[in-house]
Amino acid sequence: MIAGIIGAAGYAGSELVRLLAGHPRIDGLVLGSVSRGGERIEEIYPNFWGKVSAPLESPDKVIAAAGVVFAALPHGVGEPYAKACMERGVSCIDLSADFRFDDDEASYTAWYGKTYQYPELRRCSVYGLPELYRNRIREFAARGPVIIGNPGCYPTAASLGAFPALARGLAALNGSPGIIVDAASGISGGGREPARAYHFPECADSVSPYKIGEHRHTPEIGRNMGAMRNQAVAGRGPAEPGPPVPVIFTPHLVPMNRGILSTIYIPLADAWKSAGMDAAGMEAARPRSRETGEKIREIREIYADFYRDEPFVRVLPMGTAAATGRVRQSNFCDISVHGDQAGTTLIVISAIDNMMKGAAGQAVQNMNILLGFEETAGLGVIPALF
Amino acid sequence: MIAGIIGAAGYAGSELVRLLAGHPRIDGLVLGSVSRGGERIEEIYPNFWGKVSAPLESPDKVIAAAGVVFAALPHGVGEPYAKACMERGVSCIDLSADFRFDDDEASYTAWYGKTYQYPELRRCSVYGLPELYRNRIREFAARGPVIIGNPGCYPTAASLGAFPALARGLAALNGSPGIIVDAASGISGGGREPARAYHFPECADSVSPYKIGEHRHTPEIGRNMGAMRNQAVAGRGPAEPGPPVPVIFTPHLVPMNRGILSTIYIPLADAWKSAGMDAAGMEAARPRSRETGEKIREIREIYADFYRDEPFVRVLPMGTAAATGRVRQSNFCDISVHGDQAGTTLIVISAIDNMMKGAAGQAVQNMNILLGFEETAGLGVIPALF
Amino acid sequence: MIAGIIGAAGYAGSELVRLLAGHPRIDGLVLGSVSRGGERIEEIYPNFWGKVSAPLESPDKVIAAAGVVFAALPHGVGEPYAKACMERGVSCIDLSADFRFDDDEASYTAWYGKTYQYPELRRCSVYGLPELYRNRIREFAARGPVIIGNPGCYPTAASLGAFPALARGLAALNGSPGIIVDAASGISGGGREPARAYHFPECADSVSPYKIGEHRHTPEIGRNMGAMRNQAVAGRGPAEPGPPVPVIFTPHLVPMNRGILSTIYIPLADAWKSAGMDAAGMEAARPRSRETGEKIREIREIYADFYRDEPFVRVLPMGTAAATGRVRQSNFCDISVHGDQAGTTLIVISAIDNMMKGAAGQAVQNMNILLGFEETAGLGVIPALF
Amino acid sequence: MIAGIIGAAGYAGSELVRLLAGHPRIDGLVLGSVSRGGERIEEIYPNFWGKVSAPLESPDKVIAAAGVVFAALPHGVGEPYAKACMERGVSCIDLSADFRFDDDEASYTAWYGKTYQYPELRRCSVYGLPELYRNRIREFAARGPVIIGNPGCYPTAASLGAFPALARGLAALNGSPGIIVDAASGISGGGREPARAYHFPECADSVSPYKIGEHRHTPEIGRNMGAMRNQAVAGRGPAEPGPPVPVIFTPHLVPMNRGILSTIYIPLADAWKSAGMDAAGMEAARPRSRETGEKIREIREIYADFYRDEPFVRVLPMGTAAATGRVRQSNFCDISVHGDQAGTTLIVISAIDNMMKGAAGQAVQNMNILLGFEETAGLGVIPALF
Repeated sequence: MIAGIIGAAGYAGSELVRLLAGHPRIDGLVLGSVSRGGERIEEIYPNFWGKVSAPLESPDKVIAAAGVVFAALPHGVGEPYAKACMERGVSCIDLSADFRFDDDEASYTAWYGKTYQYPELRRCSVYGLPELYRNRIREFAARGPVIIGNPGCYPTAASLGAFPALARGLAALNGSPGIIVDAASGISGGGREPARAYHFPECADSVSPYKIGEHRHTPEIGRNMGAMRNQAVAGRGPAEPGPPVPVIFTPHLVPMNRGILSTIYIPLADAWKSAGMDAAGMEAARPRSRETGEKIREIREIYADFYRDEPFVRVLPMGTAAATGRVRQSNFCDISVHGDQAGTTLIVISAIDNMMKGAAGQAVQNMNILLGFEETAGLGVIPALF
Repeated sequence: MIAGIIGAAGYAGSELVRLLAGHPRIDGLVLGSVSRGGERIEEIYPNFWGKVSAPLESPDKVIAAAGVVFAALPHGVGEPYAKACMERGVSCIDLSADFRFDDDEASYTAWYGKTYQYPELRRCSVYGLPELYRNRIREFAARGPVIIGNPGCYPTAASLGAFPALARGLAALNGSPGIIVDAASGISGGGREPARAYHFPECADSVSPYKIGEHRHTPEIGRNMGAMRNQAVAGRGPAEPGPPVPVIFTPHLVPMNRGILSTIYIPLADAWKSAGMDAAGMEAARPRSRETGEKIREIREIYADFYRDEPFVRVLPMGTAAATGRVRQSNFCDISVHGDQAGTTLIVISAIDNMMKGAAGQAVQNMNILLGFEETAGLGVIPALF
Repeated sequence: MIAGIIGAAGYAGSELVRLLAGHPRIDGLVLGSVSRGGERIEEIYPNFWGKVSAPLESPDKVIAAAGVVFAALPHGVGEPYAKACMERGVSCIDLSADFRFDDDEASYTAWYGKTYQYPELRRCSVYGLPELYRNRIREFAARGPVIIGNPGCYPTAASLGAFPALARGLAALNGSPGIIVDAASGISGGGREPARAYHFPECADSVSPYKIGEHRHTPEIGRNMGAMRNQAVAGRGPAEPGPPVPVIFTPHLVPMNRGILSTIYIPLADAWKSAGMDAAGMEAARPRSRETGEKIREIREIYADFYRDEPFVRVLPMGTAAATGRVRQSNFCDISVHGDQAGTTLIVISAIDNMMKGAAGQAVQNMNILLGFEETAGLGVIPALF
Repeated sequence: MIAGIIGAAGYAGSELVRLLAGHPRIDGLVLGSVSRGGERIEEIYPNFWGKVSAPLESPDKVIAAAGVVFAALPHGVGEPYAKACMERGVSCIDLSADFRFDDDEASYTAWYGKTYQYPELRRCSVYGLPELYRNRIREFAARGPVIIGNPGCYPTAASLGAFPALARGLAALNGSPGIIVDAASGISGGGREPARAYHFPECADSVSPYKIGEHRHTPEIGRNMGAMRNQAVAGRGPAEPGPPVPVIFTPHLVPMNRGILSTIYIPLADAWKSAGMDAAGMEAARPRSRETGEKIREIREIYADFYRDEPFVRVLPMGTAAATGRVRQSNFCDISVHGDQAGTTLIVISAIDNMMKGAAGQAVQNMNILLGFEETAGLGVIPALF
């Protein structure tokens, strides 16, 4: 199988090159770039010297030569390439937001300021979060070539952290403020183009929030959580989209290269009914009770059970909090389960590598599902401590 | 005036040395250490070469020679020194938690696992957050020597970020989950003693939460917020302690030297009554409306007005989010005001330098108030961008 | 005195703003920008909020209003402004390379690819390294308005580290390979414009050399060292330029915000005559002898004596190596003296903050000398450990 | 084949665990620890969760169960384990300095302050730098079980950078000061034990030299270079130890997790005869000539040719300088060839990951050679850009 990568000169693209060049079921790569045709990948990325050597071709050449195509392009420019893939009968994994909203073009337009160029493509596109839609992806793939809308980095971490609570009915969503996702990202999330916000002296040795209440990953998180909650309401079965869950999302830039950490606050259904300021206020002054500790332990068991068969989700043992450094360069999502001192709110930490499970790694995972490879093929790296 | 510093060999102590050696109203320093007597400060901290040169004396010598004493010691060991100061008629600024809980020994014991050694010292001790208790500090100082319980780093940032919303009745506290404080700290917050969590390879290039729902700063945050909320209930006037506000607090370690950033989620009273899952859920899919933007702008005005006369609080203009890098080495608390997309939750960002407004800088500010110096004396540094 | 800053929107310019706004002898600032006129400094640099507030004017307005002018501009564009200053009778401190080469236009042209626009300006210009030319600067200033060519960051650190060895005749320069300066710089040295080399993910967690054997600071280092060596040859007195010393210079980018560290290898005159491969080879296998240790100790004394009256040079005690972190935000140059195990080569470490002694701090020091202020005025900061 | 690792709880040990757990020819691991027996590796290193799970056994159990043993222990404690391996007929790869000096116990004692416990073990020990002694390793292995003295991190980078110049007679060693190795290391080089020098606030955002002229890797570098120079003198053939090359070595700590960069200054034989201060001094003022540029290009060709068949050495193209970030987590040694402006000194940059080619990766490479596996087995990772 030949894999094609359009947008290989970007960070997500180069990470795809790295993963696919070492993938046991991929026999060759065709690399493409919209704007840098003619250059060689190892000149742009000297880390590839001696390992990967290839010219950057036009997107057309990539589509013509590949058995599966990855598009790692800015939002709003990839639809023609996806269309060309469909016409050639080749599946396409798109890393932009263009295929993450299915037929809800209104949300896409509201948040991204663009309209669909070829709305009909959504008939053969599926959102590619395997832990939510693995079966859907397989069903689509069984019918012919598909477009996979590869999830955003923040939505992946946030959704995986909240899913078990939503699916098992632990979360209080009626009358509560919804779920708060407070997240931190490494600087590579901003991509390869130099800009003030990612200029070393402006982001090193500092932490800074950005796009508070305005980040475009917000509706994607709400959609994912809504789909999973739908399972709990409708009974376990193939997940289907449901009404979105209200989500408050605050991203921060942290001075590290890779990684996304989500700290997710989920109001607990059992505590919510009775909790009021006065009672909770008194409790705020007291450390966690033994009962509350026990409750969290039980929820951790629910989480561990929920993800028991997932190859890339690790529910950490009690007492170990997830951290980005320990999933670096791996496709893992590490999850740890905690709670506030009063037992009213579940606090879940999820950590991924934004370039891996948050982008290229998940795209390869989707390819593996799509093509019937072992789901972990080419993604088996054991993460280092640092 | 001679200033004495017990615990000068620690990070907060050395920062006090730096600030007081350059303070226009301090004529000399006497440095002390419980365990490192005999060493010289410039040998322990080579950054002081050519600027500060002094031996570390016993605490007794410090108290005997100083006109004002700073104690930068671990929790639970400073009471005898505070007592000795009172007996000598010298005021003492204590940077540990020992004098932060006034006569609420129960909370102190519940969270710190210690009892008060000399409970009667609380009759002449006052919690030293100037923006909350400036008048109280002055009243206490007018009566004779005082002990100031210098606030914790996280509580300072969190409290200042929430105060205007609490004082002006913007926060919904009845029936809500309370206020969520999601915070990040630079590694110097862990102090000078090497430990695994602060070992460079274990914390660089990673972000990691810790002590989730268990951090000992939680009750201090709740107390401060309760005192400020009490103002709103009781009418403006000298703040007095009130019932604590329920607070959920999650600290994270971020790979930077200095700084604390608080991201504070405050349910808005006007939105809270009507907000329910269904309505909010729909709104989650939509970007912020113009009306919501306007509401945030008005709240920012309330914040700016609230802090108009505070020398160390800067309410940033709309569109600029607070970041730790821009208050580095200054005593400023930068605050920026934001909201979620649906207008149900106020999101406030506050940033301080944990060694300055979070410890030594605030201690010097307290000394200035105590001794009738200009409040900004010795603290006028203009922060650099990096 | 009103100070004017042309180029205030750049990093060096903003550092000048910070220093001069807190300078006890400066009564006001006029800020200017060639390209960003109309913006306000506190909007470009939010760290200034509440401390410095000023619009960016045209360079003409700055020159017309100021009693002393700083030009923090790219190489090759500042001559017209320096000329205008001279015509108005106002001294100008130029932070570019344009006035560092005096009448040696050939070297300037060879390395910078530009010619002098107004060669005659060099009649009233002087190279502003106070530790080399303090008397020259005063002599020039006594005659009328002057242009000071403020030194480069690397040349400052490298020159100060080598001066005592050159002035006291310790260095073997005949028949030796010359002096090797291996240097590391923080990323802010690259300025404010975002570029790939300073993009966080490309420089964090890595160290990378650049412009090896090609950096334009090489001839400036050689000139400075030659001038100081000339003193040793000609006898102590006002330093005059002499033939340059051969210098090999290798800069590296290190993932830190500020700082320059020079590791300087100086062949020792006493060892050089006899040293040959065979002898030295044998010695390489042995740790440093007691005699060699003693020799280094004596050279350290020579260094300490040489800089005894310098307010901004600290010769550290034996056993403490200079490091950039301990001079951060100060105008100090820290120097430590070491040697190889065989006693053939003096190894000197010098550390500065590239924005301070390496740029803006030194410019203010030059202004202080020029205007007869105390040399340390506005530069008295005590550096922190981190 | 079962691989045993004594000292698995240290950083080098944990890196061996990571590599060997993913090695295609290793069927299982037995982990051991001298002091932490009873703990589990995934509890000490949570990055291993879900990938590696094993208890830490006593060293005896490891030796009894393993077909090949790695010892990642402090200097001076591993000899008994190596002896036990020999008695059991199992080869041992020792990562300490204990087997790096062959029968030159005097140098080992002079620099490490210890004597050999079992001198006779050196009869079956060989220094394990494959690019120098690959044939020797094979010859020793052919005779029976061997002990491989795995090289130090700095010596590996420095030696590989200088070898071609030494082997091809480019270096002037008679009458020159020898070879200067100016090196930078990531903080993980200090190991897992927390200590002041590796405490985040003391090393972040700073660069600091240490053990100047005193580092114990100095004689190992000199030995390696001497052995390679011997080839040039004696004619190409199996390398044998020769007299050491005089080396000046200065290490620096840089705020990054992994990596060693060597900047190596080698006096060029052709330039050296005639170079003197006056001539060179004049040249210092001039940029590099075309002829000098051409000479460096030719030397780069010599380097590329020298390493043509080496699987883990990459000689970079002209214009690309080696950097540590681009070899992170790989076993590569990247080398780039440069020169000073005057053409008198060859400047070579070599970059490795100190945990990989500088420790555990090289140990696995040695195991591959020893056991007749493909030399790159288990080491094929493609490095990422960040």
